[in-house]
Amino acid sequence: MNKAEIRALLEQVKKQELEVDTALKAMEDLPYKELGFAKIDNHRELRVGYPEVVYCEGKTVEQVKAIFQFMYAKESNILGTRANAEMYASVQAVCPEARYNTLGRTITVQKNPACQTESYIAIVAAGTSDAAVVEEAFETASILGNKVQKIMDVGVAGIHRLFDHMDTIRGAKVIIVVAGMEGALASVIGGLVDKPVIAVPTSVGYGANFGGLAALLSMLNSCASGISVVNIDNGFGAAYSASIINKL
Amino acid sequence: MNKAEIRALLEQVKKQELEVDTALKAMEDLPYKELGFAKIDNHRELRVGYPEVVYCEGKTVEQVKAIFQFMYAKESNILGTRANAEMYASVQAVCPEARYNTLGRTITVQKNPACQTESYIAIVAAGTSDAAVVEEAFETASILGNKVQKIMDVGVAGIHRLFDHMDTIRGAKVIIVVAGMEGALASVIGGLVDKPVIAVPTSVGYGANFGGLAALLSMLNSCASGISVVNIDNGFGAAYSASIINKL
Amino acid sequence: MNKAEIRALLEQVKKQELEVDTALKAMEDLPYKELGFAKIDNHRELRVGYPEVVYCEGKTVEQVKAIFQFMYAKESNILGTRANAEMYASVQAVCPEARYNTLGRTITVQKNPACQTESYIAIVAAGTSDAAVVEEAFETASILGNKVQKIMDVGVAGIHRLFDHMDTIRGAKVIIVVAGMEGALASVIGGLVDKPVIAVPTSVGYGANFGGLAALLSMLNSCASGISVVNIDNGFGAAYSASIINKL
Amino acid sequence: MNKAEIRALLEQVKKQELEVDTALKAMEDLPYKELGFAKIDNHRELRVGYPEVVYCEGKTVEQVKAIFQFMYAKESNILGTRANAEMYASVQAVCPEARYNTLGRTITVQKNPACQTESYIAIVAAGTSDAAVVEEAFETASILGNKVQKIMDVGVAGIHRLFDHMDTIRGAKVIIVVAGMEGALASVIGGLVDKPVIAVPTSVGYGANFGGLAALLSMLNSCASGISVVNIDNGFGAAYSASIINKL
Amino acid sequence: MNKAEIRALLEQVKKQELEVDTALKAMEDLPYKELGFAKIDNHRELRVGYPEVVYCEGKTVEQVKAIFQFMYAKESNILGTRANAEMYASVQAVCPEARYNTLGRTITVQKNPACQTESYIAIVAAGTSDAAVVEEAFETASILGNKVQKIMDVGVAGIHRLFDHMDTIRGAKVIIVVAGMEGALASVIGGLVDKPVIAVPTSVGYGANFGGLAALLSMLNSCASGISVVNIDNGFGAAYSASIINKL
Amino acid sequence: MNKAEIRALLEQVKKQELEVDTALKAMEDLPYKELGFAKIDNHRELRVGYPEVVYCEGKTVEQVKAIFQFMYAKESNILGTRANAEMYASVQAVCPEARYNTLGRTITVQKNPACQTESYIAIVAAGTSDAAVVEEAFETASILGNKVQKIMDVGVAGIHRLFDHMDTIRGAKVIIVVAGMEGALASVIGGLVDKPVIAVPTSVGYGANFGGLAALLSMLNSCASGISVVNIDNGFGAAYSASIINKL
Amino acid sequence: MNKAEIRALLEQVKKQELEVDTALKAMEDLPYKELGFAKIDNHRELRVGYPEVVYCEGKTVEQVKAIFQFMYAKESNILGTRANAEMYASVQAVCPEARYNTLGRTITVQKNPACQTESYIAIVAAGTSDAAVVEEAFETASILGNKVQKIMDVGVAGIHRLFDHMDTIRGAKVIIVVAGMEGALASVIGGLVDKPVIAVPTSVGYGANFGGLAALLSMLNSCASGISVVNIDNGFGAAYSASIINKL
Amino acid sequence: MNKAEIRALLEQVKKQELEVDTALKAMEDLPYKELGFAKIDNHRELRVGYPEVVYCEGKTVEQVKAIFQFMYAKESNILGTRANAEMYASVQAVCPEARYNTLGRTITVQKNPACQTESYIAIVAAGTSDAAVVEEAFETASILGNKVQKIMDVGVAGIHRLFDHMDTIRGAKVIIVVAGMEGALASVIGGLVDKPVIAVPTSVGYGANFGGLAALLSMLNSCASGISVVNIDNGFGAAYSASIINKL
Repeated sequence: MNKAEIRALLEQVKKQELEVDTALKAMEDLPYKELGFAKIDNHRELRVGYPEVVYCEGKTVEQVKAIFQFMYAKESNILGTRANAEMYASVQAVCPEARYNTLGRTITVQKNPACQTESYIAIVAAGTSDAAVVEEAFETASILGNKVQKIMDVGVAGIHRLFDHMDTIRGAKVIIVVAGMEGALASVIGGLVDKPVIAVPTSVGYGANFGGLAALLSMLNSCASGISVVNIDNGFGAAYSASIINKL
Repeated sequence: MNKAEIRALLEQVKKQELEVDTALKAMEDLPYKELGFAKIDNHRELRVGYPEVVYCEGKTVEQVKAIFQFMYAKESNILGTRANAEMYASVQAVCPEARYNTLGRTITVQKNPACQTESYIAIVAAGTSDAAVVEEAFETASILGNKVQKIMDVGVAGIHRLFDHMDTIRGAKVIIVVAGMEGALASVIGGLVDKPVIAVPTSVGYGANFGGLAALLSMLNSCASGISVVNIDNGFGAAYSASIINKL
Repeated sequence: MNKAEIRALLEQVKKQELEVDTALKAMEDLPYKELGFAKIDNHRELRVGYPEVVYCEGKTVEQVKAIFQFMYAKESNILGTRANAEMYASVQAVCPEARYNTLGRTITVQKNPACQTESYIAIVAAGTSDAAVVEEAFETASILGNKVQKIMDVGVAGIHRLFDHMDTIRGAKVIIVVAGMEGALASVIGGLVDKPVIAVPTSVGYGANFGGLAALLSMLNSCASGISVVNIDNGFGAAYSASIINKL
Repeated sequence: MNKAEIRALLEQVKKQELEVDTALKAMEDLPYKELGFAKIDNHRELRVGYPEVVYCEGKTVEQVKAIFQFMYAKESNILGTRANAEMYASVQAVCPEARYNTLGRTITVQKNPACQTESYIAIVAAGTSDAAVVEEAFETASILGNKVQKIMDVGVAGIHRLFDHMDTIRGAKVIIVVAGMEGALASVIGGLVDKPVIAVPTSVGYGANFGGLAALLSMLNSCASGISVVNIDNGFGAAYSASIINKL
Repeated sequence: MNKAEIRALLEQVKKQELEVDTALKAMEDLPYKELGFAKIDNHRELRVGYPEVVYCEGKTVEQVKAIFQFMYAKESNILGTRANAEMYASVQAVCPEARYNTLGRTITVQKNPACQTESYIAIVAAGTSDAAVVEEAFETASILGNKVQKIMDVGVAGIHRLFDHMDTIRGAKVIIVVAGMEGALASVIGGLVDKPVIAVPTSVGYGANFGGLAALLSMLNSCASGISVVNIDNGFGAAYSASIINKL
Repeated sequence: MNKAEIRALLEQVKKQELEVDTALKAMEDLPYKELGFAKIDNHRELRVGYPEVVYCEGKTVEQVKAIFQFMYAKESNILGTRANAEMYASVQAVCPEARYNTLGRTITVQKNPACQTESYIAIVAAGTSDAAVVEEAFETASILGNKVQKIMDVGVAGIHRLFDHMDTIRGAKVIIVVAGMEGALASVIGGLVDKPVIAVPTSVGYGANFGGLAALLSMLNSCASGISVVNIDNGFGAAYSASIINKL
Repeated sequence: MNKAEIRALLEQVKKQELEVDTALKAMEDLPYKELGFAKIDNHRELRVGYPEVVYCEGKTVEQVKAIFQFMYAKESNILGTRANAEMYASVQAVCPEARYNTLGRTITVQKNPACQTESYIAIVAAGTSDAAVVEEAFETASILGNKVQKIMDVGVAGIHRLFDHMDTIRGAKVIIVVAGMEGALASVIGGLVDKPVIAVPTSVGYGANFGGLAALLSMLNSCASGISVVNIDNGFGAAYSASIINKL
Repeated sequence: MNKAEIRALLEQVKKQELEVDTALKAMEDLPYKELGFAKIDNHRELRVGYPEVVYCEGKTVEQVKAIFQFMYAKESNILGTRANAEMYASVQAVCPEARYNTLGRTITVQKNPACQTESYIAIVAAGTSDAAVVEEAFETASILGNKVQKIMDVGVAGIHRLFDHMDTIRGAKVIIVVAGMEGALASVIGGLVDKPVIAVPTSVGYGANFGGLAALLSMLNSCASGISVVNIDNGFGAAYSASIINKL
C-alpha cells in the first residue's frame, strides 16, 4: 500500500465517503491464517495465483495434515515437498485426490485444471541417480502450470548423449540443470545456450563430494555465463524460479 | 548445425548446387580467433549480439591489450571485468573511447549505440560497502543493453529504508540483490516480490564472514522462494543472467 | 571468599571467637556432591536460587536417574535437557511429578511454586520446524521463573506476519530469536527493536545448510546491532542467558 | 505505528481535526537522510538517544567524511568503527573535536556530555594482544554512555591473575570477555559469575586458529551457561549489546 | 569425425558414390541406447573393448537389473560398482553367471575370457580395514583384463613389513596405494619407486579424519613426486586409470 | 641393525665362524606374521615388552578372532580397541580370559601379571559424557602396566570441583585431560601444572561442535604451555603416549 | 639392495674375494650429499637419469644458490621450481647457462642434450589465466626429456574450441588438463579420450573458489573415468607423473 | 595452598605465633607484576626455574621492550617468540646481551649459565623449508636448559636419508618431528622408535595444504602410536613440552 493509495483513503475518510473501520481494514495487513503452530500465508496465493507450498520436513504428521486440510477448503492447488509416505497417508484422508511422487517426495493436490504455459522449462539431469531432485522439480513446475521437458542421463562423461538433445534444450525458455558429482554439466550447457540456466547441485556422489559441496562450488564457479545456482538438492527452488521466468 | 541442415547441405552437394569446399566450410566449426595465448570466441557475438567479455584477472597487461585490440577491429561492444588501472591505460592506447569504472573495475567500449530494453533490471544493495559489486553489475547490464535502476544502502538493519523503494523494486522485470555480512536482504526481498531474484553475496564483512561464505550460505538457504545465487562478488554473472531474463 | 572476609575470619580466630574447625569449614570450598561418575554442583543453586540443570545426552539412563534422585531430595526445581523418553520413564519412577516435553526433550521437576517475573521473555521462531528448539527454550525459561511469550512461524518469507506481532516483541525485556535455514529473522528483528536479542541458529534445513552452519554464520555476521548468538539448536543456553538478563 | 494509532489518526481526519497532508506525513515512514551512496538512519537516534554509528571499512575516505559532516550538523554523538588514520584526518577537517583511538580504530565525536550509567560493564581480556578489540569495545560502550571497567591480561594460563579481579568482575551488570587463541577465559568466567557474559572471540593466534575460528567455536560450545557470542573481533557489537543490557 | 573424413564423405556424395542417407547415418552420432531413465553409452565399448560400468548407488534395484539385462544381450563383460546384495540378487536372475564381491560391493559378469596383460598392477594397502576399497580396485582391474598383485597391511607404523615387499612393488608397471588414517604410505612408496603411483585415500579412521579428508589432503600434498590421487574410497577410479596406463 | 653390527657379521663370515645362511638370516628383517589379510608386527613386542594392539573397527569379526587367536598363542598381553560386543563374543571363544569394557569398547587379555609403575598417570575428564574415552585410555594405560588415577566431571563450568583434586593431578608423572564441548579444561590444567599434559578432545557436544572439532582446535590453540594433543576421541593414543613418558 | 645381492656379497667375503671394508661400503646406504641445511639425494639421479629437482619456496637465496652450485658440478640437468627472480640472479652467477621462465617460476639448467621421447604429453589449459601452471608443467616435462604439445584457452564455456583440437589431444600418450574456476574441462576431456588424464586444479578464480578448492573437488569427483588429480597449482607434479607414464 | 597448610596457619594465628597480616600475606595469591597492559606471571618462574616467555606477536614494540626491561631486572633467563627485528632492536637497548635468531624469530637473554640436561631432545625436520620452526624449537629447548640434536632434511621422499640418522634419533629421550606438506615423517619415525614423539605440523606447502591443515590432520590421524601434536608452526610449544618430558 503506497503513499498515493493512503492519501486516497484519507481523502475518502475526510469526505466521509469511507467509514473509519473500512479504511482501517483496508490498511490492515493480516493476510494469513493463524493455526497456532503455523501462520499460513494467504497473500501470495491471491496475488499471484500460485498454489500454497508446504515444506513438510521437520513438521509432525498431524501438522502437515492440518495444514492441507485448511488449504483444501480454499480451492487452490497445493504442493507439499519433502513429505514422507506417512504424511501422504494422513493427507489423503482429508484430500482424497492428493497424489504422491515417491521418488520426488512431493504431495500434490490439483483442484483447478492447470492453465499451462506455451513455452516450456527443460529439466536436464546428468545421471539416473539425480532422479529424486528431477522429480521434485518436475512436480513443482507442473503444479505451477508450466509445460516441462525432462532429459535424463546426459552427463559429460559421454557428452555425445547431450549433443543429441541440444535442440530440445535450446528450445526451452529456461533450463534447469541437475547434476551431482562434479556438476560439470551446468558449465557445458551454459556455454551452449543463450537461455537462463538454473543449476541444482545434488548430493549424489561420495568421499570428497562432501554431500554435494563439490557440485555446488563447481556450479558457483562456472566459467560459463548465465548460470545461477540454488541449494543442494533444491529441485523445488529451481522450479519455482524457473516458473517465474517462464511466465514473464 | 542439426541433422536437417546437414541433410540439406548433402542434397545440395549431390545436386552439384554446392561446392564441396563451400559445404565443408559451412560444416566447419571454428568460430574463434587464435591469438596464441587465447582463443577468442566469435560465435557467441554473432549468435546473440552480445559484446565480447574479457575476464582480465590473471592475464598480463599485454594480453589484455592484445585482446581488446583484436576485438576493437570488429565493431562490437567490449566489456573487460576485474581490470586494474594499468590494464585500462594500455587498452586506452588502442581503444580511445574505452571507459573505466574505478570502483567496479570494468573497462567498457561502446561502439554501437545501445538499443536499450524498455523493462529494467533493479540492482538493490544492502550497504555502501557493496558498491564495487554493484558497479560491476551496473556496467555489465548497461553494456548488454539493459535499462537499470540502482537502489543503494537498504540493508535490513533499517528495513524502513527498503520499504520506501518497494515500488521501484516491484516494477523491475528481474531483481539483483547485492549483500555482504549475513545477506539477509535477499530473503526479505524474495518474500516481497514475484519477480526472479538473483542474489550476489559479497565479501564485505570480517571474522566469521570468511570472505563472503556467510552471505553465500545464507542466500543459498533462503526461506523465500524464487531466489537463485551466483558466486561471491560476481556482479558480472548476476547482470549477465539478469540480462538474458530481461530480454526474454 | 575475598581478602576482607579472610581477614575477618583470621581476626575472629585470633580473638578465639571462632574455632579453627569452623573457620576452616568456612574457608573450605567443596560445594559439590560426589556421585562417582559425576560431581553435582550445589554452589550455583544456593547462590542464585536456580534449579539444577542436567545435560542428559551421553549419560546412561541409570546415571540420569541417580542424578535426579539425589537432587530430588534437596527440594529444588530440576531441569533435564536432551533427555529421551527412556530417561524420562526412569526419572518418573523416583520423581513422580516429573514432566516431559516430547518436542523439547526436557524433563522438569517443579517442586517450588514459580515466583514469576513481571517482565517477559519473547521467543520468536521463524518456522514450525524450529519448534523443538523453541520448546527447549520455553521449558528452560519457565522453570527458571520467567514469564514467556511464544510467537511461532513469522519467518521473513512472509514478513507481514512478523510485523503484526511487533508490539508483543517490543514489549519484552529480552528477545530470543530461533531460526534455521538462513536465519535472516534475527537481523530483521534486531533492526526493529532496542532490546537485547539472543539468536539461536537451528539445524533446520538441508544441503548447504551444513547442519545449521548457514544460520549460525548469518547470525554472527548480522548487520543489525544488539544481537548475540548461542550454539546451534541451543535453546537451553539462549533461555538461560535471557533469564539472567530478564531478572537484572 | 500500530492499529490504534492509525485509527486515532483516521478519526481525526474524519472529524476534520487533522489535515490530510499532516496525517499523511505522520504515516509516512521516511526517517532517513538520502546521501546518494548511503541512507542515514535518523530513526534509531530519535528513538533511543543512541549516537550514529558508521562502519567505515569498505567506504571511501570521501564517503566517511560526508557522512560525519552530515551527522555533525545534528548535534548527536557519533561513532565511527574500523576507521583508518586517513579517514580520521578527513573527518577532523569537518569535526574538529573528533578523537581517534589508534589501537581500536574508532573515531568518536562527543557533542553531548555523556549521561553515564551507575552500573558498569566489565571488559575482561585474556591477553595484551587482544587490546585492539578491547579498545573498540571500550570506545563503543563509553560513547553510548556506560561506565566501563577494563581488566587486561588475565588469560587462563595463569588463572590466579583472574581470581584476583573477581570482585570487580562480579560487580559488573554485564561482562564482556575478549579472548583469542582457545578462548577458554569465557568458559571460566561464565562458570564463576551470575551475570550475562558476552564473549568476543579474537583473531589473535596462528596456525589452527584459522583467523579466530578456534576461539569462536570454543565460546559457542562453552560448558558454562549464560554466555552468548558475537562475531570474531567484533568489539563494537559486544559493547552495543552490553550497553542495551546495562541500561535495562 | 574430423575434417578430412567429412571432406571424403562429401566427395563421395558429390560423385553419387554414396547415398545421402548413408552419409547422413555415418555423420550421425548416436552411439547410446535410450532406456528412458538412462542412456547407455555403447561408444566407449566399441572403441576400446572395455566392459560397461554401472555405478549402482542411487539407482533402484529395478533400474540396475534393467541395465544389466540390456548389456547382457551384447556379449560384453559388465562391471557394477557400489552394488548391494539386493541388487545382486535381482541381477543374478537375468545374468546367471554374475559374481558378487561382498567386501568390494561389485557385481561382475565375465562373458569373454580375459586376455590378460603380461605386466601387472600392484595394489598396496596400509591396513586390513582398507580391504573394501582394495577389493573394488581388484575386481575393476581384473575385469578390465589386468594381472594384479595385492599386498595388504603394510602401513608405515611397521615399515619393515613394507620393505619386504619392495621387489613385488617395484616390479609392477603401475602401483595403486590404498590408505586411510594419515595416508603416509603413498609418500613412502612414492619416494621408493619410479613407477606411476595412483593414491586412493580411504575413509578408514575417526575424529579429525573427517571421512577420509586427512588422507586425501596428505596424498595431495605428498613430498614425493610421481603421485596422483583419486577420490576418497574410489577403488574403481584408481584401477581404471591404472588399467589405461598398464595397457599403454 | 647398524653399521657396527653388520661389520661384525661380515668379519665372522670372513673368518668362517658364521654360515652365510645364518648371517643372511640375521640380516633379514621379517619380524611379522603373515595372516593373509594382516601382517602382525612381532617386532614391537619383542623390543619393548608392550602388548599387541588390535584396532578392531573396519575389520570383520572373523579377522578380529583370528588375530587374537594367533596372538594368544604367544603368551603376551593383548589389547583390542574399538571392538563391539559381537567381536568380544568371538574372541572369548578362543581367549577365555578376555575381558570387555562396554563403555570403552576394549577387549583385554592379561596373560602376564602386570608389573606396575610406581608413578601414576592421571586421567582427568571434564564431564560424565566423556566416560567412553576415559575408559579406553584407562584400559590402555592399565594393560601397558601403568598405575592410573581417574578424576571425573571436573569441567570448568564449576572450577572449584577441579581445584579440590589438584594435589592428585599435580602428583602424577603425566596427565591426560579428556574434554569435549569447548575443551577449556586442558588450558586450565596446563596453566596449573608442570607435568606433560596430553589433551584428548572428545566428540561430546552438538551443533557448532562439529564432531569434536571445537575441542580439538581449542586444545591445539591453548594459551598454556606444555600441552600436546591427540586425535578426537583417541583415548588409546593418549594413554600410549602417556605410558611411554611414565616409563621413561 | 635385495636378499640375493646381499647373499652374493656374503659369499664373496667368505671366499675372501672381497674385503670387509669394500663389502661394508657396498652395503652402506648413504646416497646423498650433506650440505648442513639440506641433504641432496644423489640416488634418484643415478638410478633413473632424472635431473635434480629443487623446490625453492621457503629456502633462502643463499641456500638455493648453494644447492645449484653443488649440483652443477655433477653434470646433470637441474630443475628449480617456485623460484623468484632474485633466486635466479644468484643461481646465474654460478650456473651461467641457467634459464628462467618468469611465468612458470622455474630455473632450468640443461647440461646434457635432451634425448627426447617420440610420444608426447599434451598439456591442455582451460584459460589464459592458467598459464603459470602450464609453464611449470611444460618446463618440467621438457627438462625430463619429453616432447610436449600445449593447447591453451579451450575451456568448456566455448566447447567448440576444444573439439577442434581433439586430434592432437587424442594423439598424446598422456594428457595433463589444467583448469581453475570449476575445472569442468577435466571431466569433458576424460569422457572423450582413452589415455591417462592427470588433472591439475588451479587457484584461478575468486569467491567460492576458495583458492582452487572448487576445481580440486570438481576433479576428484569427476563422473568421467581415467582421471587422477594432483595438488592445486602443482604443474610440476603433474608433469613428473606424466613423464613417468610417457616413458613406460 | 591446601587444607592442611591453611589449618596450620590458622592454628598459628590462634596461638598468636603469627600476625594476622603475615598469615593474610601467606594466603594472598598475587604472584604477578601489573604493568597495566600486561600482568607478568612471576609464579611459574619461582616454582619451576623456567625463564619467562613473551609471545611478542600482536604486542607493540614498546610493550615488548617494557616487558623485557622489567624481567631483565629479575636475573632470570628470558625468551621472546614471534619477535620481529624492530622488537629486537628496542629490546637490545635495555638488555645488551639479548640475542636474535632471525630464522626462528626468537629473542633470548641468557643471564644464568645453562645447567644442561644429560639426555637430549632430537629435533628432526622433513625439509630445509621447515627451518624457521626448527629454530624456534631449538632456541626454546636450549634456553630451557636442554641438550638438543638437530637433524635436517630427512623427509620421506628419500627415506634412506632418515635411516642413516636413526641411531641419533633413537638415542634421544624425546623426539620433536617437524614437517610440512603431508607430514608423513611423524608417522614413519613414530613407527620406528619407542620414545615420546611430539609432532609439529608446519605451514610449508601450497594449494590443498591450506596453511598447514594437511600436515596437522595427517599427524593427528597417524597410524603409529606414541605421537602427540601441537599447533601448526608451534616450535615453541613442542620444545616446551619436550623440555618437561626431558627433565622428568
